[in-house]
Amino acid sequence: MSETALRATPDRSRTTPTAGEVPAGLAPARAPGSRVRIVIVGAGFGGLVAAQALAKAPVQVTVIDRRNYHLFQPLLYQVATAGLSPADIASPIRGILRHQANAEVIMARVTDVDRERREVLIDDGGRRIPYDYLIIAAGARHAYFGHDEWEAVAPGLKKIDDATAIRHRILVAFEKAETATDPEERRRLLTFVIVGGGPTGVEMAGAIAELAKKTLVKDFRTIDPASARVILVEGGPRVLTAFPEGLSAKARRSLEKLGVEVLTNTPVELCDAAGVVSAGKRIEARTILWAAGVQAAPVAKWLEAEKDRAGRVKVEPNLSVAGNPDIFVIGDCATVLQANGQPVPGVAPAAKQMGAYVARVIADRIAGKPMRAPFRYRNYGNFATIGRHAAVADFGWIRLSGYLAWLLWGAAHIYFLIGFRNRLAVMLDWMWAYVTYQRGVRLITGAGSDS
Amino acid sequence: MSETALRATPDRSRTTPTAGEVPAGLAPARAPGSRVRIVIVGAGFGGLVAAQALAKAPVQVTVIDRRNYHLFQPLLYQVATAGLSPADIASPIRGILRHQANAEVIMARVTDVDRERREVLIDDGGRRIPYDYLIIAAGARHAYFGHDEWEAVAPGLKKIDDATAIRHRILVAFEKAETATDPEERRRLLTFVIVGGGPTGVEMAGAIAELAKKTLVKDFRTIDPASARVILVEGGPRVLTAFPEGLSAKARRSLEKLGVEVLTNTPVELCDAAGVVSAGKRIEARTILWAAGVQAAPVAKWLEAEKDRAGRVKVEPNLSVAGNPDIFVIGDCATVLQANGQPVPGVAPAAKQMGAYVARVIADRIAGKPMRAPFRYRNYGNFATIGRHAAVADFGWIRLSGYLAWLLWGAAHIYFLIGFRNRLAVMLDWMWAYVTYQRGVRLITGAGSDS
Repeated sequence: MSETALRATPDRSRTTPTAGEVPAGLAPARAPGSRVRIVIVGAGFGGLVAAQALAKAPVQVTVIDRRNYHLFQPLLYQVATAGLSPADIASPIRGILRHQANAEVIMARVTDVDRERREVLIDDGGRRIPYDYLIIAAGARHAYFGHDEWEAVAPGLKKIDDATAIRHRILVAFEKAETATDPEERRRLLTFVIVGGGPTGVEMAGAIAELAKKTLVKDFRTIDPASARVILVEGGPRVLTAFPEGLSAKARRSLEKLGVEVLTNTPVELCDAAGVVSAGKRIEARTILWAAGVQAAPVAKWLEAEKDRAGRVKVEPNLSVAGNPDIFVIGDCATVLQANGQPVPGVAPAAKQMGAYVARVIADRIAGKPMRAPFRYRNYGNFATIGRHAAVADFGWIRLSGYLAWLLWGAAHIYFLIGFRNRLAVMLDWMWAYVTYQRGVRLITGAGSDS
Repeated sequence: MSETALRATPDRSRTTPTAGEVPAGLAPARAPGSRVRIVIVGAGFGGLVAAQALAKAPVQVTVIDRRNYHLFQPLLYQVATAGLSPADIASPIRGILRHQANAEVIMARVTDVDRERREVLIDDGGRRIPYDYLIIAAGARHAYFGHDEWEAVAPGLKKIDDATAIRHRILVAFEKAETATDPEERRRLLTFVIVGGGPTGVEMAGAIAELAKKTLVKDFRTIDPASARVILVEGGPRVLTAFPEGLSAKARRSLEKLGVEVLTNTPVELCDAAGVVSAGKRIEARTILWAAGVQAAPVAKWLEAEKDRAGRVKVEPNLSVAGNPDIFVIGDCATVLQANGQPVPGVAPAAKQMGAYVARVIADRIAGKPMRAPFRYRNYGNFATIGRHAAVADFGWIRLSGYLAWLLWGAAHIYFLIGFRNRLAVMLDWMWAYVTYQRGVRLITGAGSDS
């Protein structure tokens, strides 16, 4: 693609058309034979679905991601708790898009967007990637409410390296406890605090409790891993606030049955190497895990767009950015209201629906078809799992908990895992763990593991 | 175990008895009810077999390893080349020894041995682990012939973190080549030099060639991964010097069929970020992998014992250390001559045989039985594999190459993998790769992957 070609962007109105209008002026007036360039930032659920939905459109798709793999984030907590291998829930983006002839993949970090020249800036020697349409699906990271210094002692869980680092911490804590001579220190080493009672916090707490009380219970000679304390700390009045109150209560009881101590109405004021402090009271713990909040990628800054408190870009009903009808923001870095006045939740199905919607909006616009109706999120169900045999599921029309919810949760996650190989590998790992109570991935690797 | 108990070591002769003698003075004169303490340093093939062979002996076994897992090193190159997940070839030591009631595991790094007080020193706050018998199976690391500065540019392959770091380098090289604008730099990025033509070097070269020419071939749009150069550089006159000449030649032909350039009689004089230099001639490459030599753990220093050039302790015919009849050194950190004048090779079966032998020697001595005959290595066969459908196998009485050798190699490695789960996982990965030519573990993770 030549430099001249890069600038051959059509003149188009900067107003956002409303649903039903034919956006006549918006169809790029391209030279015959030159394809509309669609750049997608991020190959998470939203970005990947958008790319795949454009497979048959007369466009050139460029997917930019700073990592080379798509991550099935809903199961990342199982990597962190030694249940799955990273490769079980991650798939190379190039592999997924291999047979999509109109797609290319660039592994790079996006640093800015030049809306004037219609280019995405990447960190690869100041290279610029030209676009006609831009879909930003850059996701979110965990946030520390302005206390970034807590990250060093209370790691969060967003990428594979987070998960292996957390696995490292959890397993090393047991090893250190085994050789500790001071009983106080041993107690601190065997106390695990999880901050945040959302699905990630609940699932991690359940998995750590199972690891300690089932998997490791016969592995040590000095300590009794079953005596480990797992404490889930939530600032609000209940866990799983996105679920109905009845299911929150059931989730709490399931956690307590596993031996997890659930502390609600307990906002954390301080995290340090010795534990957390809430309401002036200290809980001593050597392992603190953060599942309390997320912060969107700095998309609003790139676009000088309006954002909410979590940094998510406030998008138009068709998921474009006000004043930039060719730029769409989807998934965890966007916020859009549903008809009921509630924002679309930051879950994988919502991101996928947004990706598919935006791909259709763009394809329609290129084809000169009338404007689509605004994006509408369809909630097919909401899951959270709490260890073996326990989960809660909210399908709107029916609410489930216990064994049946757990089976459905397992089936749904296997089904949505990308790639036949990954599905098989996860099923194998799970069946093995189910039968033996063992976890196959109890490896202490990574930084410091050889010291 | 009280501090007093630690010192209650029996008085015993420091001479090494010869085979056939009853080592009367050597049986520890312990108080009734107190068990003989056997400390094993290292849970590789040798150490683990020794620990397991002592399961029914009236002893207390303590296994010390600085990592929490036993590693099936013969398949480590497949982790480095994205064929297997780390957890497929690693198994937690505690899990392996869980049901062995007389065994405990300490995760720590050994820093020295106090032969006077009969204690092993570990890095855990200067703790000391008392022993009556000591088995050292601490293994080896790669060595750079006095050029340790080469390690930064030419990493070797001994532990899981090495393998994931090498995988990271290989995959990032292709990514960088895809976005490189300078054709010279692209060429350098697509050149992979493997230094050392032993089994590890041969297997890595074959696997990288397959990765480039089969797995990745459709994944990129700008570069042609099949154009990657894979160069195996060996200082001696042939690859696989431990094999008969005929099999060396066959291995070389198999490599060349895969597109690997094999350079023999090419000792490397320099490694830097831009490539390697041999005989004053530079081969430009951004990825250099080291498979050229190993250096034993500093066991000889701990014991003030005689060592060979690779740092291996020269042990007695019964694998004990001269003047220290209760200390045994086995596996890659020991060297012992066979009846034919050749040293026992540094391979997994030799380490396992040594571990089993030493366990019997100790059990016999405790039981007051006559001295065992000297250690004798039984060579049941020697394998090296060169990608899909090609391997060489030397069983002494018969030599095989090609498809049959490759099948035998696969079966043998599956068989010897510890743990049913790992066997299943590896079989699944292999079958998947065989049918699809894909590699499931193409993840760029670890240090720098998020930058």
